Amino acid sequence: MSLTHFDDSGKAHMVDVSDKDITSRIAVAEGYITMTTETLALVVEGRADKGDVLGIARLAGIMGAKKTADLIPLCHPLPITKVSVDLTPDHDLPGIRISATVKTTGKTGVEMEALTAVSTAALTVHDMVKAVQKDMVIGGIRVTLKDGGKSGRFEA
Amino acid sequence: MSLTHFDDSGKAHMVDVSDKDITSRIAVAEGYITMTTETLALVVEGRADKGDVLGIARLAGIMGAKKTADLIPLCHPLPITKVSVDLTPDHDLPGIRISATVKTTGKTGVEMEALTAVSTAALTVHDMVKAVQKDMVIGGIRVTLKDGGKSGRFEA
Amino acid sequence: MSLTHFDDSGKAHMVDVSDKDITSRIAVAEGYITMTTETLALVVEGRADKGDVLGIARLAGIMGAKKTADLIPLCHPLPITKVSVDLTPDHDLPGIRISATVKTTGKTGVEMEALTAVSTAALTVHDMVKAVQKDMVIGGIRVTLKDGGKSGRFEA
Amino acid sequence: MSLTHFDDSGKAHMVDVSDKDITSRIAVAEGYITMTTETLALVVEGRADKGDVLGIARLAGIMGAKKTADLIPLCHPLPITKVSVDLTPDHDLPGIRISATVKTTGKTGVEMEALTAVSTAALTVHDMVKAVQKDMVIGGIRVTLKDGGKSGRFEA
Amino acid sequence: MSLTHFDDSGKAHMVDVSDKDITSRIAVAEGYITMTTETLALVVEGRADKGDVLGIARLAGIMGAKKTADLIPLCHPLPITKVSVDLTPDHDLPGIRISATVKTTGKTGVEMEALTAVSTAALTVHDMVKAVQKDMVIGGIRVTLKDGGKSGRFEA
Amino acid sequence: MSLTHFDDSGKAHMVDVSDKDITSRIAVAEGYITMTTETLALVVEGRADKGDVLGIARLAGIMGAKKTADLIPLCHPLPITKVSVDLTPDHDLPGIRISATVKTTGKTGVEMEALTAVSTAALTVHDMVKAVQKDMVIGGIRVTLKDGGKSGRFEA
Repeated sequence: MSLTHFDDSGKAHMVDVSDKDITSRIAVAEGYITMTTETLALVVEGRADKGDVLGIARLAGIMGAKKTADLIPLCHPLPITKVSVDLTPDHDLPGIRISATVKTTGKTGVEMEALTAVSTAALTVHDMVKAVQKDMVIGGIRVTLKDGGKSGRFEA
Repeated sequence: MSLTHFDDSGKAHMVDVSDKDITSRIAVAEGYITMTTETLALVVEGRADKGDVLGIARLAGIMGAKKTADLIPLCHPLPITKVSVDLTPDHDLPGIRISATVKTTGKTGVEMEALTAVSTAALTVHDMVKAVQKDMVIGGIRVTLKDGGKSGRFEA
Repeated sequence: MSLTHFDDSGKAHMVDVSDKDITSRIAVAEGYITMTTETLALVVEGRADKGDVLGIARLAGIMGAKKTADLIPLCHPLPITKVSVDLTPDHDLPGIRISATVKTTGKTGVEMEALTAVSTAALTVHDMVKAVQKDMVIGGIRVTLKDGGKSGRFEA
Repeated sequence: MSLTHFDDSGKAHMVDVSDKDITSRIAVAEGYITMTTETLALVVEGRADKGDVLGIARLAGIMGAKKTADLIPLCHPLPITKVSVDLTPDHDLPGIRISATVKTTGKTGVEMEALTAVSTAALTVHDMVKAVQKDMVIGGIRVTLKDGGKSGRFEA
Repeated sequence: MSLTHFDDSGKAHMVDVSDKDITSRIAVAEGYITMTTETLALVVEGRADKGDVLGIARLAGIMGAKKTADLIPLCHPLPITKVSVDLTPDHDLPGIRISATVKTTGKTGVEMEALTAVSTAALTVHDMVKAVQKDMVIGGIRVTLKDGGKSGRFEA
Repeated sequence: MSLTHFDDSGKAHMVDVSDKDITSRIAVAEGYITMTTETLALVVEGRADKGDVLGIARLAGIMGAKKTADLIPLCHPLPITKVSVDLTPDHDLPGIRISATVKTTGKTGVEMEALTAVSTAALTVHDMVKAVQKDMVIGGIRVTLKDGGKSGRFEA
């Protein structure tokens, strides 16, 4: 078994997908950012009247998905056809749960786009809240669904 | 207590730092990506002769730090003066531990740059290894040191 | 009637166009920047021997069209197949009239690309001329033609 | 009188500001986008429960300011220290009035950044509302205040 | 004979490729950077244990190919399907020989992407080595193969 | 002697320049692109009435200088204070000679910015002329002057 991003002599390349079919593809990724109950209250309450942390992080996640091929060196540029990002307060965590769904009609999958959307949304929450809490932790970032390519459906 | 990224009426803005002093600032962030022992072996072995996953992720992390103000909507652009990213295999995890150090001589801190470096490096490992393992998880992304600004030293 | 860039709960998303047909699409947009007769004379004369304001603004407009999906948060990235930008001195305005034509073969229209081209060209004229006149005004930016998609032909 | 963005032989260049002082600078720009009363009602109502057009356009404007030197060919890159963007429904227009304030501590002014913020915010409103109205017009984009440089205070 | 990037009146435009067929296309470009035998030894030796100049330049070249439409004003954005970059020490030069292969399935060729990959890789070698030698020279950058479009096969 | 872009264990990093002085710095680079006498005639004549290849390449070079830190992985972002690019037809070459001058007031030199400007201008000439000649060659790209830093004046 070997890593496809390297050729036989171990040199990195952007994998040749020229001969792959153009198919409808979807990927879903998730993650979270933890914070104290007090910080979470500030974020949630803010949605109503103090400033929309979750709305801004959602937008940053959507825009982040479009920058994936800029950020990840060996990623193929892809014509994304849909991105949605959800941020849900979870009082048990406590923190914000994030999930992103990305679709394309293309030659490679969009799990990196979904992961980048989640990651960028989490970083944006961190940026906006860091003045009140410095020890938040971002975690649980993983792919939960991938479908539409030759390698079949993956669901976690 | 309120969130500084919003004005009195709750509207998002890029905080005015015009009157802050230009000082030497440093931030360190960390995180990890988990994988199976078999996948980790493939990555580690690859360093020698099959393709340098960790070297590429390190570079992606460094370049990611330079894109922080592009990714995070309310982040100030900053003249970064140093970035280093370390990726260390951890066989107990099992997975790769990542840490990033960023410095600037500027008016605001660089913790978002350090977090973005860690996050981009982790996403890049995921991209290069995903053909052999789909259920890797990125986590533990947090600031461990921040120093040089008005708010004093923070260490986690 | 509702805004398509939001889901049923009012959250912003990049609209799913996965199932739309790939068709030939065209959009034309226009706008202008006003200035004094003296400033306009300087710009027009410059075309001959003092520096090509209109040529540079034309190029900026073309390059701006390619950045549309970077600038407009919920815009889909599109494979642009043609961009042209025209800048015409209008001594009655007085000022410069700008128009942009963009084509694609894709799943969504290119009116935002045409508008962004006009807008970027106008801003570039402003930048190059602002040392001699500070109170120029950019206006009249609108779509004049859109064709090729499911919603049919629009002409203004 | 001549245009500073060209040298003596009429060739475009990025003006040499090496010897200019680093000073605190501010610029304010404004503009608007017109729409029907019905469309405006949809946008305003949306702020409460159907999707936050103005919040998203505000964020796009802030991020647009950071891309100014990418968009405008001869603009100097600048360390922006503050950006705020306001979008106010105007039922007499009818439409949305937009204003942007940008600050820097640097060698050149930030009026292009303020104009780009207004322009990007207006384009973003257009993008989100175009499904319900195609003939909106963006206009009145101009600098209303510039201060802090050698050329003194300008107020419109 | 005339230059296709200009219309009949001599104004630059992005050529209309809307009606061209989508075909498989390939381009190969090459170039080199010269340095002293001592500098070359340092670079080559570095591959083993002092730092991987060639691996980093390879990655920069791959990422550079993805930025082609950003850098070259009248280039069409293209969905690149493969990029590989090879850097080979040549002790007779002495220096590093670089070659890049780019593929797409699209409406225009990818020779600019291949040339940009070579050029970016060469600049990156220069950046990493310039502390030990300032008078390196980058040269010989040219297309050696182009195939898959209407204009037929070109081989140098 | 060792390469500064790697730490003691050979890992790439962005060199720490935090403690370097902010000084006025300048760099000049040059290069050329060769073509046949017939192609050169087409380019030169075009300046008058068929399309301004050299003007567009000049602008691309200036904008390319601003993208240097995006393209070159370990380059520090710098506040460029001046860029000029000259393109001169040379009938003996035959081809176009290119030179770029970049200034900054910063902590590191701008030779990579000058080299990137020359390289981007040359690639842009290639792009615009390639329909009439495919075997042009870009070469002679090198630094001819660097001054203002701790390492002193370099002149080639």
